[in-house]
Amino acid sequence: MAKLNTAPLSGMRDFLPIDVLRRTYVISVIERVFQSYGFEPLETPTMERLSTLLGKYGEEGDQLIFRVLKRGEKLAEALRDEATENNISDAGMRYDLTVPLARVVAEYRSKLPRYFKRYQIQPVYRADRPAKGRFREFFQCDVDVVGSASLTVEAEVLAAGAQILRDLGFGSEVHPFSLRLNHRGILRGLMETAGVPRALEDGVLVAIDKLDKIGLEGVRAELGQRGLEPEAATNLLNTMATAPQTNSEMAAWLSDLLEESELGSRGVSEVKQIIALSSHSPAAAHLRIDPYLARGLSYYTGAIYEVEFPGFSGSGGGGGRYDNLVGMFSGQNIPSCGISLGLERIILLMEEQKMFPDRLAGQPQLLVTQFDESTVGESLALAQRLRAAGLRVDLYPDSDRYGRQFKYAEERQIRF
Amino acid sequence: MAKLNTAPLSGMRDFLPIDVLRRTYVISVIERVFQSYGFEPLETPTMERLSTLLGKYGEEGDQLIFRVLKRGEKLAEALRDEATENNISDAGMRYDLTVPLARVVAEYRSKLPRYFKRYQIQPVYRADRPAKGRFREFFQCDVDVVGSASLTVEAEVLAAGAQILRDLGFGSEVHPFSLRLNHRGILRGLMETAGVPRALEDGVLVAIDKLDKIGLEGVRAELGQRGLEPEAATNLLNTMATAPQTNSEMAAWLSDLLEESELGSRGVSEVKQIIALSSHSPAAAHLRIDPYLARGLSYYTGAIYEVEFPGFSGSGGGGGRYDNLVGMFSGQNIPSCGISLGLERIILLMEEQKMFPDRLAGQPQLLVTQFDESTVGESLALAQRLRAAGLRVDLYPDSDRYGRQFKYAEERQIRF
Repeated sequence: MAKLNTAPLSGMRDFLPIDVLRRTYVISVIERVFQSYGFEPLETPTMERLSTLLGKYGEEGDQLIFRVLKRGEKLAEALRDEATENNISDAGMRYDLTVPLARVVAEYRSKLPRYFKRYQIQPVYRADRPAKGRFREFFQCDVDVVGSASLTVEAEVLAAGAQILRDLGFGSEVHPFSLRLNHRGILRGLMETAGVPRALEDGVLVAIDKLDKIGLEGVRAELGQRGLEPEAATNLLNTMATAPQTNSEMAAWLSDLLEESELGSRGVSEVKQIIALSSHSPAAAHLRIDPYLARGLSYYTGAIYEVEFPGFSGSGGGGGRYDNLVGMFSGQNIPSCGISLGLERIILLMEEQKMFPDRLAGQPQLLVTQFDESTVGESLALAQRLRAAGLRVDLYPDSDRYGRQFKYAEERQIRF
Repeated sequence: MAKLNTAPLSGMRDFLPIDVLRRTYVISVIERVFQSYGFEPLETPTMERLSTLLGKYGEEGDQLIFRVLKRGEKLAEALRDEATENNISDAGMRYDLTVPLARVVAEYRSKLPRYFKRYQIQPVYRADRPAKGRFREFFQCDVDVVGSASLTVEAEVLAAGAQILRDLGFGSEVHPFSLRLNHRGILRGLMETAGVPRALEDGVLVAIDKLDKIGLEGVRAELGQRGLEPEAATNLLNTMATAPQTNSEMAAWLSDLLEESELGSRGVSEVKQIIALSSHSPAAAHLRIDPYLARGLSYYTGAIYEVEFPGFSGSGGGGGRYDNLVGMFSGQNIPSCGISLGLERIILLMEEQKMFPDRLAGQPQLLVTQFDESTVGESLALAQRLRAAGLRVDLYPDSDRYGRQFKYAEERQIRF
């Protein structure tokens, strides 16, 4: 037999037992907290109609969708007719969890409660170039409230996110995290105030988002490349340089700065309210107003936020209010707000910083060994009694030298 | 906007919260029991190389594999070259959990313990014609011990299966189940004894398997169609008619009948041992020797078994020993034995027979209502205190008429 390639496909992973148990540990904390906040689980199929997926993620996103081939007569027909990408495929694999949510809201509106509070933890698929920490099959973990424009939603979603991170061991001095909080209105206000033309806003926000990476002068250069007048760039950067540190100073500073901007003032007011509503929340100690947090996605309409692990690059998740997205299939605006936790990133950080418990729930606690053929029945009976007492018990299946039985226990990290 | 089709794809399902919670309830029982028997979880990618999948499920199976289109330049090239099914696709979606297990065993042999005791609960994909209870995306739930030829494995796997069914509420007089037990050797012995030519065996077993459905004369007719001499058919059917009922009578009867057949005798002896090893097992009361249980799959090499719910058609799962399959990618025989639980069937039965608890873990227990804008902070603080006490608490996000708040609580089945 020719040697077959038995590695998983590029960018995809096999999860051996220890990996699954770690993942399960994190997911179980997430689910417990989400449920304690009144969220309920949703699961949707791995495949969706191409018509559902295409055109939702931009041209670049469309290219990253894994497409599923038509089958049987339909495929034969398409190949005879004209073999184009769109002709020979009829389904695609889930690219994110937001489009399926929008589809579910449109399909089952009458069966869903007035406020649909759902979480969804499922893998998504992107034909991206694989790299360290970037996979073609990876888990997303989204929680959203659909149907309410109240700011209590932002407060609750941030509280749930913070509670999860704390329950996983983050939030101490050793493993700090912060929740950067901003608002689309504040960003718009800052752009207006600095004299950035509307058409350049998106590009300017992208450049500003790189401040941590490329420094002030790097941002200035990029702003120039993107066509921003030097004067506006200087305005912007000077203002950034004078931003104060604490939330209350920041709120006051922004109130003054954006007094003239209607959108800006509304943004400041909402951010202040979210912070006030969070006073009893586990998020309180971690919220940090960051008026230059942009988050790439242009569909946000209100508050935006991002989980940051100081000292570690990359986002640990984020979200915001996006009132025009969930209604995409329903033909109406449906106010929605949520947070997506960076599950893969969180697991990686917890592994690197050894934050997992030594013993994970699910691993066997005891090994029942076998003396010889004649005592097999007794070994089985003993294993049954221990299991009935609630223990996780492995049974060595063969009569074998004791040394081998102990070696096996070691391989499986069984102590007794 | 044109009205889009927002239903899930044919043969696939959205799981709304109540569906997910029921499914999670069943899976959590399965996982707890499997873990108590020393099994650990494995998860593999949704997609596999086509070379891994093709040729493993027969020609018909190959046709049912969902294929994933090549992308970018590779696709363009294939379309220019020659657009054939094999040329334009490079991956397929998981068709079962056994081929991925065999691949994992080949890939990580040195990292896995001497005995690899794994369970795997993931969806699989088959482009079958959808029908009632037959889906194109459905969960399989497999448990297997890889690496031991000991009969304690059969006993343990059957015990775990029985314990799961009992913990789910089966096994009482109202919801009985049985574990039909047979052995490839017994089937071979019966065929030899009745004078069935080796070449006709598989077809004869298929016909016999239909006894419940088409009756004795129906089976006789089909045996004729399949080319079996009337004399051999009569032998076979007469022998079947004289089979006794209880396990001990059946074992004695088979011992006599198959005395001359080496394979048959080995089969009887192993079945007897499995029953003896099960004396302390939760499976004991449910095991029923059925010498005509065939199970379609020809890869079994030893014991075979099937979960039966009396009064309900269709199998609730099954399995057996298959010593030549898991080594398919390793180039060696690796003794293996497992059971696959019919998760979809079990959930359907439990729904039909109202076997789910009224309140499922995960649903919110309390709704904190809102009086008016001024008390939002207090409502949030109250919700936080109740959550800290371990309760699952939903918060009504808007200030709204009390009637609407109560209606919402009703929609979500929240009592308090």
